[in-house]
Amino acid sequence: MTMRVGVVGGGQLARMMIAPAVELGLEIRVLAEQEGMSASLAATQVGDYLDLETVRAFARDVDVLTFDHEHVPQPVLRALVEEGVAVHPGPDALQFAQDKLVMRARLAELGMPQPDWAAVASADELQAFLDDHGGRAVVKTPRGGYDGKGVRVVSAATEAEDWFTALAEDARGGALLAEELVDFTRELAQQVARRPSGQIVAYPVVETVQRDGVCAEVVAPAPRATGRLAAEAERIGLTIAEGLGVTGMLAVELFETADERVLVNELAMRPHNSGHWTQDGAVTGQFEQHLRAVLDLPLGDARPREAWSVMINVLGGPADGSLEDRFAAVMADHPRAKIHTYGKAPRPGRKVGHVTVVGDDLDDVAYEARAAAAHFAD
Amino acid sequence: MTMRVGVVGGGQLARMMIAPAVELGLEIRVLAEQEGMSASLAATQVGDYLDLETVRAFARDVDVLTFDHEHVPQPVLRALVEEGVAVHPGPDALQFAQDKLVMRARLAELGMPQPDWAAVASADELQAFLDDHGGRAVVKTPRGGYDGKGVRVVSAATEAEDWFTALAEDARGGALLAEELVDFTRELAQQVARRPSGQIVAYPVVETVQRDGVCAEVVAPAPRATGRLAAEAERIGLTIAEGLGVTGMLAVELFETADERVLVNELAMRPHNSGHWTQDGAVTGQFEQHLRAVLDLPLGDARPREAWSVMINVLGGPADGSLEDRFAAVMADHPRAKIHTYGKAPRPGRKVGHVTVVGDDLDDVAYEARAAAAHFAD
Repeated sequence: MTMRVGVVGGGQLARMMIAPAVELGLEIRVLAEQEGMSASLAATQVGDYLDLETVRAFARDVDVLTFDHEHVPQPVLRALVEEGVAVHPGPDALQFAQDKLVMRARLAELGMPQPDWAAVASADELQAFLDDHGGRAVVKTPRGGYDGKGVRVVSAATEAEDWFTALAEDARGGALLAEELVDFTRELAQQVARRPSGQIVAYPVVETVQRDGVCAEVVAPAPRATGRLAAEAERIGLTIAEGLGVTGMLAVELFETADERVLVNELAMRPHNSGHWTQDGAVTGQFEQHLRAVLDLPLGDARPREAWSVMINVLGGPADGSLEDRFAAVMADHPRAKIHTYGKAPRPGRKVGHVTVVGDDLDDVAYEARAAAAHFAD
Repeated sequence: MTMRVGVVGGGQLARMMIAPAVELGLEIRVLAEQEGMSASLAATQVGDYLDLETVRAFARDVDVLTFDHEHVPQPVLRALVEEGVAVHPGPDALQFAQDKLVMRARLAELGMPQPDWAAVASADELQAFLDDHGGRAVVKTPRGGYDGKGVRVVSAATEAEDWFTALAEDARGGALLAEELVDFTRELAQQVARRPSGQIVAYPVVETVQRDGVCAEVVAPAPRATGRLAAEAERIGLTIAEGLGVTGMLAVELFETADERVLVNELAMRPHNSGHWTQDGAVTGQFEQHLRAVLDLPLGDARPREAWSVMINVLGGPADGSLEDRFAAVMADHPRAKIHTYGKAPRPGRKVGHVTVVGDDLDDVAYEARAAAAHFAD
């Protein structure tokens, strides 16, 4: 029987599951937030993922429910699981991606290396954390942040005053997350896939370059990653996937510090921007791997196809037209560049596509990927 | 503006255009013969491709019309071209893929090496051809054959009597094609992509293994293909694509003879089974390349990603169930195998999917591809 995967959310991550689903011969259905989204080709329903009835109706005819994002509320997820729906990743795992305070506490239990952190329920508590950490810290809203949203570097508790005010008005209450401002030398990311029945595979650790809080570039594998560093990143990824019971793809964003430590920054329990290189650069792309994992099918080979892959995000896009208007120029100059666009209108800072180049020589590959992506810039 | 490609025909070739279309950000629409076909995800219309009105209505909203097969009649194609529709490949090229006698005559004009051949309008003429060629020959119906259908090896003219009778009843009349039975050592195929504006790229020549007239295996590049052989196959592919004005993908099926000649067997003007390895084994897969070519976009890099690719067709499939029932076993044993299925019900001899393995060692790659595909056998 054809296996049916239901994806909640119609963004580019759902869109990029379409290609491997079609090739494998899986049926993919998408519950989109609105018409005309990135994954509209597979959208079978438009509706509100906050609403149990809507998600329940969508889940009725699929073999597994998975996600384009981590925003489906716990009560919705738990109700579905109780009713027998296969939900992957499940609510027990997803809570750690939905609430950064819960995540920090659990990672501490697992002994994972992470920045100093504290739950701060008031300006006074944040000030105390600042006083203990050289007067600067990162403050994060535990829920709802992404791509740099809900994250602030502060040097005085007053700079988070609005967030404390919002917290006081939020029925869920709680605290903000304060973190040590890590003096990192670069950022890394570790991708891991895990099946409900336990099989787990790790991709090579990659280097990510963020700009304005948004992933801009990924180099895979991470250059100058010593065996020790790569092994440590893999150990962290595998430990978290198992410790948190993640199913599907897990991305662990990491800081590498000047004193050669690796600290966990953020988690994502889905295909992630730092893994887009795998579509063209690995034997099994992360979107295929995610589909296999959530269906509890044996996982694919996670090894790179060639020595180096460089992925460059297209952010914003040309204000004077569409990405397609630049295809002729990009393709003419860069015949080996793999172009991916998301069917989204250009808007400053918005992720509208990415370009990956794969090859033997890192300098060539990086130069070509950047040059190709630059054609799409405004 | 989003570029829109309309594909006539809902089979697996149209299906395999979906993945690259989605990734690039092209809109793909399919005119399917019926509901529930391989390319149903992109099917926007069901209708008869023999009917001008149906195809005209489908072509109205697309930037280019292309094909899953070569069966759209010339009058339909020519009417659309006259009305300004971009049709690629166009009728002037497609006639050579639609009528093997027209093809043989044109290849002769181009000086292409091919088997001895003759148009035989009667049993007497066929007998004369047999007498001149050692008493055996291949007889083909000029139109409508594929996958070994419409092809017969005969040693007496009486063995084609039913075809001559059918010919006499066919308003288009004409003749059968008689061809020398070539003493070939193996079969090869040459893929070429060509844009309307003239740019042309060649893939490496591949070896194909046919069973019962159907492609069973492809090894890319063709092993033991000397520089001279590969260059000759490429020259033939490029000459035919240019000489016939092909746009999109062209596949040239070739015989390699014991005396080291290469002879043209058949042509296909579309992505072709002998090029499926490119999805996983080349920088630019033939389905992406076809889309780029028919849209007159610059062509992608046609080089292999790794040393060897082996593609094995899944023919028939398990009579006792579906291909998906075998996924767990195939994937567990062969994590690097790339599995492609076409959403078609298993039926003896039917092409229902294929498996490709890519790697450095040909023996390993071939063994693994065959072993993986064997899981899907009955």
